[in-house]
Amino acid sequence: MKALEALKNTTGKLPLNVKVMIEGEEEVGSVSLWDFVQKNRERLKANALVVSDTSMLAKGVPSITYGLRGLNYYQIELTGPAQDLHSGVFGGAVPNPITILAELIARLHNKDFRVAVPGFYDDVATVSRRERAALNSLPWKEKDFRKTVGAPGLFGEKGFSIVERLWIRPTLELNGIWGGYMGEGAKTVIPSKVWAKLSTRLVPNQDPAKIAKLVEKHIRKLLPKEVTCKFEVLSTGKPWVAPYSHPIFQKAIHALENGFGRKAVFIREGGSIPFVTQMHDTFKVPCVLLGFGLPDENAHAPDEHIELENYFGGIKSVALFYNELAS
Amino acid sequence: MKALEALKNTTGKLPLNVKVMIEGEEEVGSVSLWDFVQKNRERLKANALVVSDTSMLAKGVPSITYGLRGLNYYQIELTGPAQDLHSGVFGGAVPNPITILAELIARLHNKDFRVAVPGFYDDVATVSRRERAALNSLPWKEKDFRKTVGAPGLFGEKGFSIVERLWIRPTLELNGIWGGYMGEGAKTVIPSKVWAKLSTRLVPNQDPAKIAKLVEKHIRKLLPKEVTCKFEVLSTGKPWVAPYSHPIFQKAIHALENGFGRKAVFIREGGSIPFVTQMHDTFKVPCVLLGFGLPDENAHAPDEHIELENYFGGIKSVALFYNELAS
Repeated sequence: MKALEALKNTTGKLPLNVKVMIEGEEEVGSVSLWDFVQKNRERLKANALVVSDTSMLAKGVPSITYGLRGLNYYQIELTGPAQDLHSGVFGGAVPNPITILAELIARLHNKDFRVAVPGFYDDVATVSRRERAALNSLPWKEKDFRKTVGAPGLFGEKGFSIVERLWIRPTLELNGIWGGYMGEGAKTVIPSKVWAKLSTRLVPNQDPAKIAKLVEKHIRKLLPKEVTCKFEVLSTGKPWVAPYSHPIFQKAIHALENGFGRKAVFIREGGSIPFVTQMHDTFKVPCVLLGFGLPDENAHAPDEHIELENYFGGIKSVALFYNELAS
Repeated sequence: MKALEALKNTTGKLPLNVKVMIEGEEEVGSVSLWDFVQKNRERLKANALVVSDTSMLAKGVPSITYGLRGLNYYQIELTGPAQDLHSGVFGGAVPNPITILAELIARLHNKDFRVAVPGFYDDVATVSRRERAALNSLPWKEKDFRKTVGAPGLFGEKGFSIVERLWIRPTLELNGIWGGYMGEGAKTVIPSKVWAKLSTRLVPNQDPAKIAKLVEKHIRKLLPKEVTCKFEVLSTGKPWVAPYSHPIFQKAIHALENGFGRKAVFIREGGSIPFVTQMHDTFKVPCVLLGFGLPDENAHAPDEHIELENYFGGIKSVALFYNELAS
């Protein structure tokens, strides 16, 4: 909005038509957004989509995000005994669903930390040597990453750099686990049930529905007959990648470099913005992801903030971008 | 108490001195019991200890329990990243403590479901072929056990019958696990921490302190350097077994058979009664575990009850037992 105002104040008029859609519901799950888009398809038609929901690579590094991972989210419920049992009276002779779930999870990755679900990597698009080289030479600091993570070490798929593991490789991660006694002290229970939440981040050209089926099939195959399993797919979401050789991206990079007075970069993100994929699939137009936040600015959390330098640089860049787009 | 009353009413006097100790704190952890015993050691001195805290093998089968398993209880806390991380932004490149804990748990048993902790079985006392045969020929119904458990199948250490797995074999069981997101729906988190509670049931002559050290050592050895581990021993407890050839047990069996008018049996229990071991170690006298409850009578739970047949049979048996003891 500030960019449009700046343009109008400087040149007296807007050089092209701009349709602005403001999403105020993200933190409650964007429940009305997609309905709104469907109902206003005609009014929203445009030649390009510009989204400001991504981060800059680092302070002082203006960035365009051209790839996002997709996301499938699953929940597993394992049931062994029909009710919780006393571990003294029954221990040693009954299926303990915690142990069985652990054995299952342990078999979801192989020793190179590749996802062990057969077929999981079959459709993964090859990333060219040139693109990998470009991503690996970004001004991204492993030291800062290690500091943010704060673990005694890192982990990941063999054969790929950290940036590649984060942006161009699919993953399977456990997001939650619970069952049995979780309070203070001791309770000698063998639980009837145990639960896990897990998710797969997907990359082009993995198909979320196909991956969900492969994951479920593999899990059911690994489980012993002594437990029953309820497997739920809580959500699916496609990955997205833009052909960044398209002229619109060159114009955007140019505008960013003029707006910030610094070299701009093409980056990808490991997270997912399902809306970008939906919009892209619906309107079949280029999507340019221009964000001006930084990863450590407490997005969605108390004390969220933005660097003033990036705020003003962002206004300038977007104004220049619209100007270039019109030319 | 009713047995003492019965004896007095029938014979006019008690045939021997009886000291009665009533424990009313079991469901809040028996916090005063052991202190009371220590302070009243002299007053409590006796030639034998009779405890009524065990179950009968089955309806109509009067039973004497001559063995209990010991119990060590542990808690593990694994920490990977210094704080919870977003699985999109960080997934694929950081140590996920849920996955690492699962891989650890999966390696605590081998494929024969034996505990994989080196040295765990070293001190396990051999149970004679004769005793195993006696336990395996008890009127214990596998069908009823399977029905109570209600799982699609059973599990356990290779080479041992179900009764043996429950009573004479040591075990390692997971009692609780938790970490990450446990609410409704999805949250794409990689947690900083994950916890597990686990316990080992011990048999003669395993030493609880030694076993706790072996378990901790093994767990620390299995964990990768990318996580840190806090390992706590929440409690330890010794196993107990009585030499049931001692004459007092013959008198007890005889009294039970007269009291119930049915064949009585010697059984063991998979659970633990630390008090029995403590009393036995303190007073060095034979302990006779004579209980008249049934496993399905909701002990410690709403609607706890007792079969009247067993209640009256128990009174009669204990009165007869005291009478025989005095002779």
